[in-house]
Amino acid sequence: MNYYAGIDLGGTKIYSIVINEQGEILSRNKIKVGEDKSIDGVLLLINQCYIESVEKSGLNFDDIKYVGMAVPSAVDIKKGILLNAPNLGWKNIDIAARLSKITGKKVFIDNDVNLGTYGEYSSGDNKNLKHVYGIFAGTGVGGGYIFDGKVVRGAASTAGEIGHIVVSYNGPRCNCGNKGCLEAVAGKVGIVKYIVKRADKKGKETLLDTISPNWRSSLGSSAIRKAFESKDKIVRKAVLKSANFIGIACANVINTVGVEAVILGGGLIEELSDIYLPVIEQTMKQYAIAGGADNVKIIKSSLGDDAVAYGAAMIVSKAETEEYLVYGGVS
Amino acid sequence: MNYYAGIDLGGTKIYSIVINEQGEILSRNKIKVGEDKSIDGVLLLINQCYIESVEKSGLNFDDIKYVGMAVPSAVDIKKGILLNAPNLGWKNIDIAARLSKITGKKVFIDNDVNLGTYGEYSSGDNKNLKHVYGIFAGTGVGGGYIFDGKVVRGAASTAGEIGHIVVSYNGPRCNCGNKGCLEAVAGKVGIVKYIVKRADKKGKETLLDTISPNWRSSLGSSAIRKAFESKDKIVRKAVLKSANFIGIACANVINTVGVEAVILGGGLIEELSDIYLPVIEQTMKQYAIAGGADNVKIIKSSLGDDAVAYGAAMIVSKAETEEYLVYGGVS
Repeated sequence: MNYYAGIDLGGTKIYSIVINEQGEILSRNKIKVGEDKSIDGVLLLINQCYIESVEKSGLNFDDIKYVGMAVPSAVDIKKGILLNAPNLGWKNIDIAARLSKITGKKVFIDNDVNLGTYGEYSSGDNKNLKHVYGIFAGTGVGGGYIFDGKVVRGAASTAGEIGHIVVSYNGPRCNCGNKGCLEAVAGKVGIVKYIVKRADKKGKETLLDTISPNWRSSLGSSAIRKAFESKDKIVRKAVLKSANFIGIACANVINTVGVEAVILGGGLIEELSDIYLPVIEQTMKQYAIAGGADNVKIIKSSLGDDAVAYGAAMIVSKAETEEYLVYGGVS
Repeated sequence: MNYYAGIDLGGTKIYSIVINEQGEILSRNKIKVGEDKSIDGVLLLINQCYIESVEKSGLNFDDIKYVGMAVPSAVDIKKGILLNAPNLGWKNIDIAARLSKITGKKVFIDNDVNLGTYGEYSSGDNKNLKHVYGIFAGTGVGGGYIFDGKVVRGAASTAGEIGHIVVSYNGPRCNCGNKGCLEAVAGKVGIVKYIVKRADKKGKETLLDTISPNWRSSLGSSAIRKAFESKDKIVRKAVLKSANFIGIACANVINTVGVEAVILGGGLIEELSDIYLPVIEQTMKQYAIAGGADNVKIIKSSLGDDAVAYGAAMIVSKAETEEYLVYGGVS
C-alpha cells in the first residue's frame, strides 16, 4: 500500500494531509506562517507541518511515497520551480528540490488553484467526468482546467486564468492593469469597487458601514451575506451582478471548449451558495449557445479547506506526474 | 496507398477534393447549389461533385477509402446526423448514412468550422502543434478547438462557438439573442451595426454609400478594404474595433485554456490581414495574463477555399474517426 502527502502552502498558513491509495484522508495538520517569510524559515515550517501530518496518520515516514505541494504562484512544473508568489515575496525558487532535500521524498509542485480544482475533481463521483472547468471566486477569481482527466496548464501556464478573461469591455479596472476582467466585476474586489462607486461617489447608504466598518479595505464573505440578508440594496445588486458575471464566464467556457461540468467554489460562492448557484445556472443557460448548457453539471465545491492539499496528494498518486517529480537528495 | 475524399457542403456550393496518404491534394471540384435545396436533390449534387473529383484525380473509385464531409450545422458525429443547418433549411438529417448509401463508402461528417480549423492545423508545420484554437471572422465569427492534435467538440458540440462568448457585457445585440457576443462586435454583422449607428443615427458620412450602396444588407470584405484605404473614418474605427475584439478573444482563449497557437482566418481577416493581424497580436499580448501570449504563435490561415474540404479529407485519414464512420450499404 502506498501513501501520499499533500501540502497547501499559503501566505498565512501551511496545511498538510496524508492519503492512502484509495484517496482517503488519514490525517490533517495546520501551521501558521508568521512574519518570517524567508524561504529557509518557511521551508522548516513546511517540513514541520508535513512531519506532524505523517505522525498523526500513524504511518512511518518510509510509507510515504511522494509529496505534492500546492503553491500560490505560477509554476514551472517540469523543474519544480515556483515562479512568482507575491503573497510570500518569492520569485524563481527551486522549492521542489529544496523540499525534497529536507523530506527525503520526491516532490511535485503545482499552482494552488489548479490543484484545488483537481482536488474537487478527484472527489466522489466527479472523477468520472473527463472535461471540467473550475471557477473559484473569493477576493479574486481563479480557475483550473481539466481535460481527459488531467490538469491542463497550457503553453505558458495561463490555463485557468479565467479571472482575467474580458467580459465587460472597458469596464472596471482590474488589478492586472486591464479593464473589464471577470475578477474586476465578479470577485470581492469587484463587489467592493461596485459598492464604493455607489456609496462614496453617489452618497448612497450601505449597511456595511455598521456591519463591517473597514469594508473598503477588507470585506469578509460573511459580512456580505449579512448585508445581503438585511436587504442592503447596493450589496444585493453587487452580489447579483457578481453571480451574473460568473454565469457568463461559465457560458464563455462552454462556448469556447464545451466542458461537461463546472466546479464552483471559493469563499464568496461557498458562503453565499444559495444566492450564487441559481443565478449562475440561469445566466449560464442563457448565454451558452443553443441549449449547450442544458446538460452541463454544476458542481459545488465540497472539500472546503482540504481541497488544495487533497489535489496535491491525489495528483502525485497518479502516473502522469511521475516524470515531473523532483529529487533533491537527502541532506 | 490509401486515398480519401473531403467534401465541403455549403448553402450555395459544394466543393470536393481528393488527397493521398501524405495529405497532398490530387484534385479539386466545385458545383453550385441552385434553388433546389431538397435533401435528395442536394445529395445527388454532392455525389456528382465527389464523382467528378475522383475522376479528376485519375484514381479508381475503389482507391478511395473513406469520405469526410463538412456541413454548415451542429453535428452528432457518432450517428452522422446533421442537426440544424439554417442555410439549407435542414434539421436532423442522417446525411452520413444517406451519402454512404449513394457513394458506397463509409462516411464521416462534422461541422464545417471544426473541419476548417482542422484543415489549417493539418497543413505545413502546424501539425507539430498540439493545442490550438482557430478563430474565423466573416459575416459571423466561428471557431474550432484542437487539443492533443484532435478536434474537440465538447459535451454538447459547443466547443468552437467563440463567436458567442460575451466580451462586451450589455453591448450590441447579437443574432443569437444575447448582447455583447464577440460576433456582434467583431464579425461583419458587428461592423455593419457600428457603421449604421454612426451613419444613420448620428448622420455621419461613409464612403460605403458610394463604394457599396447596399452595404446595410450586404457588405463585402473588399468594399470594407476599399473604404478603409480611402480613409473613411467610421469604417476605419469599425475595423480596428473588430480587430481589437478578436485580439481580446485570443487573450480570453489563452487565459482560459492556454493554447500554443491561434489560427486566424475567415473572409474579413483574410481580406484585411495586414490591418487585422498587427492589431490582434498587440491586443492579445495586452490582455493575456503575465506575458502568457509572448510565445503564442499567430497562424494566418493559408488554405483559402480548400481549408474545410481538406480538413474533412484529412480527418478521415486518421484512426480517431474510424469509430464514427457511418456505413449505409450500397444502393
